[in-house]
Amino acid sequence: MKLTLAQLAACCEGEIVGSNDITLDGVSNLSFADKEKISFYSDKKYADDLAHTRAGAVITSPSLADHYSGNKIIVANPLLALARIITAFQAQTLNAECVAELSASASIASGANLGDSVSVGANAVIGHNTLLGNNVSIGSGAVIGTGVSIGENTRIDANVTIYDGCQLGSRCHVSAGTVIGSDGFGFAETSNEQGPEWVAVPQIASVVIGDGVHIGANTSIDRGSLEDTVIGDGVIIDNLVQIAHNVTIGRHTAIAGCAGIAGSAHIGQRCKIGGRASILGHIDICDDVIVFADSYVTKSIAVPGIYSAALPAMPIRQWQKLVARLRRG
Amino acid sequence: MKLTLAQLAACCEGEIVGSNDITLDGVSNLSFADKEKISFYSDKKYADDLAHTRAGAVITSPSLADHYSGNKIIVANPLLALARIITAFQAQTLNAECVAELSASASIASGANLGDSVSVGANAVIGHNTLLGNNVSIGSGAVIGTGVSIGENTRIDANVTIYDGCQLGSRCHVSAGTVIGSDGFGFAETSNEQGPEWVAVPQIASVVIGDGVHIGANTSIDRGSLEDTVIGDGVIIDNLVQIAHNVTIGRHTAIAGCAGIAGSAHIGQRCKIGGRASILGHIDICDDVIVFADSYVTKSIAVPGIYSAALPAMPIRQWQKLVARLRRG
Amino acid sequence: MKLTLAQLAACCEGEIVGSNDITLDGVSNLSFADKEKISFYSDKKYADDLAHTRAGAVITSPSLADHYSGNKIIVANPLLALARIITAFQAQTLNAECVAELSASASIASGANLGDSVSVGANAVIGHNTLLGNNVSIGSGAVIGTGVSIGENTRIDANVTIYDGCQLGSRCHVSAGTVIGSDGFGFAETSNEQGPEWVAVPQIASVVIGDGVHIGANTSIDRGSLEDTVIGDGVIIDNLVQIAHNVTIGRHTAIAGCAGIAGSAHIGQRCKIGGRASILGHIDICDDVIVFADSYVTKSIAVPGIYSAALPAMPIRQWQKLVARLRRG
Repeated sequence: MKLTLAQLAACCEGEIVGSNDITLDGVSNLSFADKEKISFYSDKKYADDLAHTRAGAVITSPSLADHYSGNKIIVANPLLALARIITAFQAQTLNAECVAELSASASIASGANLGDSVSVGANAVIGHNTLLGNNVSIGSGAVIGTGVSIGENTRIDANVTIYDGCQLGSRCHVSAGTVIGSDGFGFAETSNEQGPEWVAVPQIASVVIGDGVHIGANTSIDRGSLEDTVIGDGVIIDNLVQIAHNVTIGRHTAIAGCAGIAGSAHIGQRCKIGGRASILGHIDICDDVIVFADSYVTKSIAVPGIYSAALPAMPIRQWQKLVARLRRG
Repeated sequence: MKLTLAQLAACCEGEIVGSNDITLDGVSNLSFADKEKISFYSDKKYADDLAHTRAGAVITSPSLADHYSGNKIIVANPLLALARIITAFQAQTLNAECVAELSASASIASGANLGDSVSVGANAVIGHNTLLGNNVSIGSGAVIGTGVSIGENTRIDANVTIYDGCQLGSRCHVSAGTVIGSDGFGFAETSNEQGPEWVAVPQIASVVIGDGVHIGANTSIDRGSLEDTVIGDGVIIDNLVQIAHNVTIGRHTAIAGCAGIAGSAHIGQRCKIGGRASILGHIDICDDVIVFADSYVTKSIAVPGIYSAALPAMPIRQWQKLVARLRRG
Repeated sequence: MKLTLAQLAACCEGEIVGSNDITLDGVSNLSFADKEKISFYSDKKYADDLAHTRAGAVITSPSLADHYSGNKIIVANPLLALARIITAFQAQTLNAECVAELSASASIASGANLGDSVSVGANAVIGHNTLLGNNVSIGSGAVIGTGVSIGENTRIDANVTIYDGCQLGSRCHVSAGTVIGSDGFGFAETSNEQGPEWVAVPQIASVVIGDGVHIGANTSIDRGSLEDTVIGDGVIIDNLVQIAHNVTIGRHTAIAGCAGIAGSAHIGQRCKIGGRASILGHIDICDDVIVFADSYVTKSIAVPGIYSAALPAMPIRQWQKLVARLRRG
């Protein structure tokens, strides 16, 4: 299915420079696009690719529009326009593909409560008293415990595990392999006749996830000990992220891959936590804090701004000298 | 079901100050507790919450008991008391809930050997010659290979994978998504006509896990190459931890989330490895070593104590100056 | 089944010193081997174990051969010889064990295209239009989407998830829990009436993995946004590694456990990325670069060599003084 440049510009409220009537059949990057494709240019770094592109049109920003003399859509937020345009192309084909279906091999407890147009994949498991809202999709092999609540239009991918009693809002997406609601790492130290002993403190609270939350693959979010672990509306979380028990994350915060948030840390709204960043437990991060990748936050932060502690890699000789100097003092 | 303050104090050997006869129906944190709940105060950081709590009683320590004038249980180890008290409340209801059951959709090999009261969840897979002790519980979607041995009262959660031949002791708990016994990362470098080539060294040893070991979610523990990977009794391991082949971990050691232990490292007893800490391969850490979060241990440690290399994040300007100074030397 | 030392030397092109005719029944490490076992010595660190070994023979290198007076195979690449010898022993027993089988409980779409001798484990799921080459093995509980292509002799372990449209070459091995083809972390920031909002940019490209690629457990590899995420031939990747969207990795590169590669980074051939190393997004690493463990690469690298930024842990007092000095400047 093809769309005209005018149709594409309309769906992202962009301005056309060039021919309104050319038709395009999809989106591709600058290097791979042919003249049937629209492409994307929002970073000077890719100026070389732009110079050689064969794309039929390009989405770009006002400040970069001069770089390209071909057909283009100019728009303040090119990445958002890209999302809208891909969605427009997908809308042409999705109706035929997505049929809500309860797989015959899924184990759906008789006491589960399924809304309209719910889809449950092969060998998925849905527990008692679990509520799946309208249009919820559960991937193959996913295990959803008892007493779980999942809001409308939320999509849970394959092999995800959601423990008993967790709540997810509507329009969420959880990628494969992620675990939500496992026991927090809470142990009391005592001793028995053989020496010291760890006694698990039962984790009796849950996980509460808001609306429009995106969670990547193989991430883990522990249930709370006495109070819930809470993920606010619109939070986005990448792959392999650790979120410990009792953590709270304010709305619209973004957490990149491999980050780790220790127990009872509270993170504000609109924060951006870089990849592999670590947040110590029992501290508070205020709203609008940016933590750079690979940095370790050890104290509460009360002032919005950018924080870092990531040393950049350098050639080994240079690094060895630096470490030697540091050690000498 | 309700328990009196006297009953609760008895189960944790605590001292009551206040009314023995008040009845409570559960545990909650200081902020959320109502007068039917007992709460918990063991860190001055939460003094404000204590001041405003509506809890019917509070568990606290001798040194903090003065902070609270209401009903309280004073006990040397409040966290242990919390664990005991939650368990006491749970014991009231658990009998009815837990029925051992072999799900009809589980694939249990005819040669598997199941003890009494074993529970196997929906779509779980149990291999040939695998031994599950009494009261073992296997979660939905978990895959237990052939020749595996799992001791009494151990609980394996949903979507866990345990490879062939691994051994787990009794009273262990493995959270969802964890993988035990995958091949270690052992490759010989050689070359073929196209250039260099990695040849996998078959990993022919196994994983041996002691009694009372707790392992979090989405953690991975590789099998040994020529000698087993060994996790001692009473070790506790958090989420997203990497334990490479041939590693040994002494009893009662604790390893926090996102830590990584490289191949053939040996860690002593009663160590505490902080979150995101890294231990280089082929080194020995003696007993009673504490490695702070986010630190990287590159040499063997023969002296018990605390070790660190974690730089704390700071405002970006301050950090940039620090890095510039470091580079100048 | 036993093999003579002469047979073992032949399979690894080694030189025998000692008795050709002794028979051995397996491989073990220096400490555990008895006289029926061949063992392995390639690092002086284990000289003590060598001195006490009861092994029937030892594999070693020319430079270390003098350390041992017993029966030995001397070979330039002892680790490769170890791989060959273990494989020789395994070949004796494997024929009987490995029967290709399609489990009755697997969900194999009618439109899937299976080669000869394909094996699919219990409760695995294979989607429509998916192609499994000859001798492919799919583990129990694995979920393979629609339109996936997997080359001959590739082995996918239990509970792996491969999303729609991904391609894997031949002779690959993917360990349990790994996720391939989840959506990349691509979001456009906009706002709605409640404040700022993240809009997911649909990730319409895929993951293309070459031949002979090994991927560990609980690793995640995201699909590309507009261009594929590409893993070259012969790449080896350990456990809990994050590979973000649009990343490309050249042939024969090795990536150790817990490493993270951010979006659109390009890594050359024959690189070695240490454990927990981080590579920032949108940068290029040339061929033959070694990044030490725990180091963070923030800029493109155009010169082959070794790069590091890992501070070694030290006793806490020493570390605190170092940090205080750093802060004073």
